[in-house]
Amino acid sequence: MPDYDARRGRLREMLTARELDAALITELHNVRYLTGFSGSSGALILPVDGDPVFATDGRYIEQGKTETGLDPRLVTGGLPPGLPPLAVETGSHRIGVETHDLTVDVYATLRDADQDHALELVGLDRPVEELRQIKDADEIEALREACDISTRALEQLVAGPILGRSELELAREIDNLLLDLGAEAVGFDTILASGPNSSIPHHQPTGRTVERGDLLKIDFGARVRGYHADCTRTFVVGSEPADWQRDVHAAVHAAQAVGRKHARPDADTRGVFDAVVASLEPTGYADRFVHGLGHGVGLMIHEDPFMGETTTGRLPDRTAITIEPGVYLPGLGGVRIEDTLIVHADAPEILTTASRDLRVIGT
Amino acid sequence: MPDYDARRGRLREMLTARELDAALITELHNVRYLTGFSGSSGALILPVDGDPVFATDGRYIEQGKTETGLDPRLVTGGLPPGLPPLAVETGSHRIGVETHDLTVDVYATLRDADQDHALELVGLDRPVEELRQIKDADEIEALREACDISTRALEQLVAGPILGRSELELAREIDNLLLDLGAEAVGFDTILASGPNSSIPHHQPTGRTVERGDLLKIDFGARVRGYHADCTRTFVVGSEPADWQRDVHAAVHAAQAVGRKHARPDADTRGVFDAVVASLEPTGYADRFVHGLGHGVGLMIHEDPFMGETTTGRLPDRTAITIEPGVYLPGLGGVRIEDTLIVHADAPEILTTASRDLRVIGT
Repeated sequence: MPDYDARRGRLREMLTARELDAALITELHNVRYLTGFSGSSGALILPVDGDPVFATDGRYIEQGKTETGLDPRLVTGGLPPGLPPLAVETGSHRIGVETHDLTVDVYATLRDADQDHALELVGLDRPVEELRQIKDADEIEALREACDISTRALEQLVAGPILGRSELELAREIDNLLLDLGAEAVGFDTILASGPNSSIPHHQPTGRTVERGDLLKIDFGARVRGYHADCTRTFVVGSEPADWQRDVHAAVHAAQAVGRKHARPDADTRGVFDAVVASLEPTGYADRFVHGLGHGVGLMIHEDPFMGETTTGRLPDRTAITIEPGVYLPGLGGVRIEDTLIVHADAPEILTTASRDLRVIGT
Repeated sequence: MPDYDARRGRLREMLTARELDAALITELHNVRYLTGFSGSSGALILPVDGDPVFATDGRYIEQGKTETGLDPRLVTGGLPPGLPPLAVETGSHRIGVETHDLTVDVYATLRDADQDHALELVGLDRPVEELRQIKDADEIEALREACDISTRALEQLVAGPILGRSELELAREIDNLLLDLGAEAVGFDTILASGPNSSIPHHQPTGRTVERGDLLKIDFGARVRGYHADCTRTFVVGSEPADWQRDVHAAVHAAQAVGRKHARPDADTRGVFDAVVASLEPTGYADRFVHGLGHGVGLMIHEDPFMGETTTGRLPDRTAITIEPGVYLPGLGGVRIEDTLIVHADAPEILTTASRDLRVIGT
């Protein structure tokens, strides 16, 4: 069981540094991170001094109690407008609110619900997202399980028949394998792209039938206790790879290793991206790498920190990220190799352990 | 192919009535409704006079062109801050923005991106959601297909083995049937609840094994071209119904018929709810009906208009809604019957045509 109290303690320190009396946490992944609540309607009022207040509507009182261990406050007539009175009860005045999550209209209902103007609402600069970048032991364990299920599902899929089946069929099969192997859900829409379609970075599976000689790119992952795996592998179907397929795959394979090598605590996110691009320069494929290098992964499939051409900031120790360079030759095919890993001082812990070699499947 | 030009024409009239020069549409379902774009990053600038401007990022230029028939404008460095300069180019000054969709922070980036203060941003009161309540022929056809697939999937499921299988297994089977029968996706997380679990309105399927004598409640639906079916039926498993099961089912069955009868053009949404509650009073179960009566359904699974204890407004002709009363006896079981239907002057068109009788399955 995660130590929610410790997490809230770290947020309290950040609030104190910002001279706030409390925070009003409404972004649901943040609420879950700080309380354990996994429903679709709930909020946390966290005073710097005093007990946390978890609020929800009538549907989630029981679930909220079980999941958070707190005594939920029932809010009727809309959750956001019900929060200011509860915040006032905590004796707080200067309150941080998640302006990256609240819509303009909901923010207005919050302000209006503070009828006596007892509160000063201050925009928060994503402190919970900052905390969430650093994974604790419970989170790393959930990520390990999600990645392990994903690796096993992939191996089962590629050990079976591939030739003559459609992208949609194969995508549904790996989704079902993830669930069979214990995923609580498929983490995101599976990308499964064959032949020329593999040159589209975010291809949606179609009725196209997989043919001999195709590249087959699979980007997929399981979800376990809210945490996401994210893995991509690219294969050749039914015959020895063509020279161009070997070339592209070797370039991406080497670039991905460079990315993993540079993913160290305190590394500049843009710097890791640049190192990977530089490693692709001699291959002539650098301009065919058309997306970011990777992203944080956790309660959301895409979260801080991001690594790309315009990102700033550094990788914290024990953050969970993907490293996923790709090279795409329009009309011909593309290769992406992606791991989910935990950043450590010595070497990252790679959670997605399937072979990265160019394997021939469906023979 | 939907007539996007006609839809935009109706929005232009609403903008003119609000004395606006243009609207900046960022809510993605609204963007899709007005342009056909189905990706995850796109916006529409619609001047009252002048051509619509569709903007997206590098990933969606090709898809945007194909889907919208417009010539997409490429925005780099973040979609929202790239929009004000495009709006200024259209010669517009007073611009409606979707303050129910924009976060406080994104709204601030929009304002800041208008460096010359050429624009006056005015909050919109959900005019596109208002338009979306009234379904045109293309939308009704997509809803019909989604509901037809859903009905067939349900019949296939309940014709097969039920006893001794878990809720999770059965939920996965109906999801797979929806896809087999041509759904582009499962419309929402299937609710499949057996025995005492059926008394939880929004139960998530568990490993519980279905037993003889259980009530089995299934709330599910297919998605077709972005449009959602929403259907609930409740069965008895493996033996003739107990008296209390017959009683509860008969009460809900009759109440649901009352709801369908009152769902007419211009009906007060609260009034339809009240009529259903009143019909439950003589049965003694009125206080066990603990949620709203129904909601609009379309590009979103839950959209305007809503019908419940606190709703206002009237049902428009040709709106698509659900009628879904339920009665829940904690620890014992619950029954819900839900149809998706199109409101018409004579009688609604019921799209979910599976029998509403209390059927015994899994014998």
